[in-house]
Amino acid sequence: MENGTERWRVRVNERLKAKSAITVRGTLMKLIGNLNKDDPRPTVPLGHGDPSPFPCFRTTPVAEDAIVDAVRSAKFNSYTPTFGILPARRAIADYLSCDLPYVLSPDDVYLTIGCIQAIEVILKVLACPGANILLPRPGFPYYEACAASLQLEVRHFDLNPEKGWEVDLESVDALADENTTAIVIINPGNPCGTVYTHQHLKKIAETARKLGILVIADEVYHHLTFGTNPFVPMGAFGSIVPVITLGSISKRWLVPGWRLGWLVTCDPNGILQKLGVIESIMGCLEVTSGPPTFIQGAIPHILEKSGEDFFSKTIDTLRVTAYTCCDRIKEISCITCPNKPEGSMFVMVKLNISLLEDINDDVEFCLKLAKEESVIILPGAALGMKNWLRITFAVDPSALEDGFERIKTFCQRHAKKQ
Amino acid sequence: MENGTERWRVRVNERLKAKSAITVRGTLMKLIGNLNKDDPRPTVPLGHGDPSPFPCFRTTPVAEDAIVDAVRSAKFNSYTPTFGILPARRAIADYLSCDLPYVLSPDDVYLTIGCIQAIEVILKVLACPGANILLPRPGFPYYEACAASLQLEVRHFDLNPEKGWEVDLESVDALADENTTAIVIINPGNPCGTVYTHQHLKKIAETARKLGILVIADEVYHHLTFGTNPFVPMGAFGSIVPVITLGSISKRWLVPGWRLGWLVTCDPNGILQKLGVIESIMGCLEVTSGPPTFIQGAIPHILEKSGEDFFSKTIDTLRVTAYTCCDRIKEISCITCPNKPEGSMFVMVKLNISLLEDINDDVEFCLKLAKEESVIILPGAALGMKNWLRITFAVDPSALEDGFERIKTFCQRHAKKQ
Repeated sequence: MENGTERWRVRVNERLKAKSAITVRGTLMKLIGNLNKDDPRPTVPLGHGDPSPFPCFRTTPVAEDAIVDAVRSAKFNSYTPTFGILPARRAIADYLSCDLPYVLSPDDVYLTIGCIQAIEVILKVLACPGANILLPRPGFPYYEACAASLQLEVRHFDLNPEKGWEVDLESVDALADENTTAIVIINPGNPCGTVYTHQHLKKIAETARKLGILVIADEVYHHLTFGTNPFVPMGAFGSIVPVITLGSISKRWLVPGWRLGWLVTCDPNGILQKLGVIESIMGCLEVTSGPPTFIQGAIPHILEKSGEDFFSKTIDTLRVTAYTCCDRIKEISCITCPNKPEGSMFVMVKLNISLLEDINDDVEFCLKLAKEESVIILPGAALGMKNWLRITFAVDPSALEDGFERIKTFCQRHAKKQ
Repeated sequence: MENGTERWRVRVNERLKAKSAITVRGTLMKLIGNLNKDDPRPTVPLGHGDPSPFPCFRTTPVAEDAIVDAVRSAKFNSYTPTFGILPARRAIADYLSCDLPYVLSPDDVYLTIGCIQAIEVILKVLACPGANILLPRPGFPYYEACAASLQLEVRHFDLNPEKGWEVDLESVDALADENTTAIVIINPGNPCGTVYTHQHLKKIAETARKLGILVIADEVYHHLTFGTNPFVPMGAFGSIVPVITLGSISKRWLVPGWRLGWLVTCDPNGILQKLGVIESIMGCLEVTSGPPTFIQGAIPHILEKSGEDFFSKTIDTLRVTAYTCCDRIKEISCITCPNKPEGSMFVMVKLNISLLEDINDDVEFCLKLAKEESVIILPGAALGMKNWLRITFAVDPSALEDGFERIKTFCQRHAKKQ
């Protein structure tokens, strides 16, 4: 009785039960748990988009200096206004306006704890009883996990591997109904490494306008492109359809741990204001915390002073590792890559399970690969794509070579005997 | 039509409409909006608990150095594990264990974005249909705002100004029913400046145990005490009742803008585990972001190396300003202070509105004071205490003297003629 639960009236919110199964982090934790601790080789982490531990992907000293100066100044120890300090909001508005046909105001910008909080805020705003939202498959499963916790219905449209992972706009049309509220577009693409053309993005905007739904543009990988298509922000089509752009410094500045993101309304016609979306975003942020003040204080310096040399060094390295990745995939018969990545940090790879002897699906493939070769790769099942794999190439080139050698050995060992 | 809303299917979550009216931040923004921009005098901010802009309340160089070193090391740019990095969790467990009759484990500690996210998490965990929670009146209105957004019912128990703002335990008994899940205790007290005795805290724990409810111990002002009662953590009674301790470095280290807080389960009997509270906390944190990694990385250094001289300098300054505050209050006939503050950064003051000529309540008092004298004070209405005022004394001593001179002039100008 002393240690029993009989006396306690406490009940807990059942909707919060652990969601590991459907988050990237949860899946990766399972794979890490399956590593063989006796393997003396270093683990090769090809499972998530965080190159920051590798010296070749160290952030620019400009960014580090900006944080140090902000802390040393002692001017940024206080609470901030709800949506972020004005210099930071202005710097982000100016930074994003460079790529837009109109000028954003600081009032269009809301600072968030990384892109994650930006996703959380906009899904909360749209989570009305009965409402549904359109998500890409494959996509980024945090959207699904967050929508589930808000009881917001999710409907998936397909990205087509036969057409460079473009959005299948006919299936979008067929999915939407009068309760559909928005479509999420991730560009540059996670997990496919695609960079959409101006023309395709415009078609998406026109489809959304026709359907009367908002576009949520997840551009956390903005400007991380190294192929033929340049990065075009969805906000460029803000006069066709209201666009809510989500972003952060996490990927372009290689500092996902700094947790500085933004939600930006790209809506020159002021439709979001009329729909009450702005008031709802403000209400949502009012009862939460923003990023630490001194990181906000560093933002103008980071955005304005980071040099092209830093950005192009990152791009050059990613181009090399992406192409290495594609070349190595060709050497392994049970995996194929339908589209060469042109951006972000990932490529989607199809697993031909029929060529393997004692492996039944992508999850088993990844669990055994972790155990036998200390290589972490994300199973497609975590993204709704059974028997696909998501491989990140945003690692040190030598680690990538090492990882692919091990994957090759692993696949040979498990290959069906002819 | 082009700019109309007819074509859009979007609806927004009505529960998120702006809650400014019931947050401290919202109330302060209204007062700041009422300031007279032509007043050449500096504004005296006695409205919120953020002394960090004043040089006498600058944080210790140890804390600044720790952040700078963590950034410069480039070891803390990655994503963190869900509940925070182990060295930070361990450092917080060790830090808090010093004041407890048992030892906390790093697994008892969850890192949060300031104390605000810790409050959000525990209220989310307890927000079941029909459940209610007991909150102090006066208290910290973020609890009410957060509970409202979660549709968690709130019931208020009184703190008794006749008895040093102690909890009226009889009213707690009368309020609780089979749907009551927890009681919130803020100690050292915001807004009353009280520091509860060991004996009173033990009685609270025993009452909670009898009722079968948890104690949520908001100890964001931990160790900020300068009277006769030492700070006793509620967790000291964790073997009587499971205690969920919320805290942060915001107040003791004078850096509210750094947003580093914690939620700690003080429960040596493991009851929270059995009740499913732990799993629910974990599920809640899994779909959200923690504090920036390099701030987590700095925590062991901050907690272990900050010197007693820094803490005692803060305490000495707060003692002086608290007593100055009490002395100046005595010089103003329309306000009285029933209890000298012994901790935190605030004192509650009763306003005798009948002595004023053209002011009808505390809100009008504060609006006019802002406009005429550029002094910001929080009206008690924001805390559920009409015709009381919350005054912070955590400001530079000369600013405090200046502020009280202006309050005195203001009250004399508005006094009823005899």
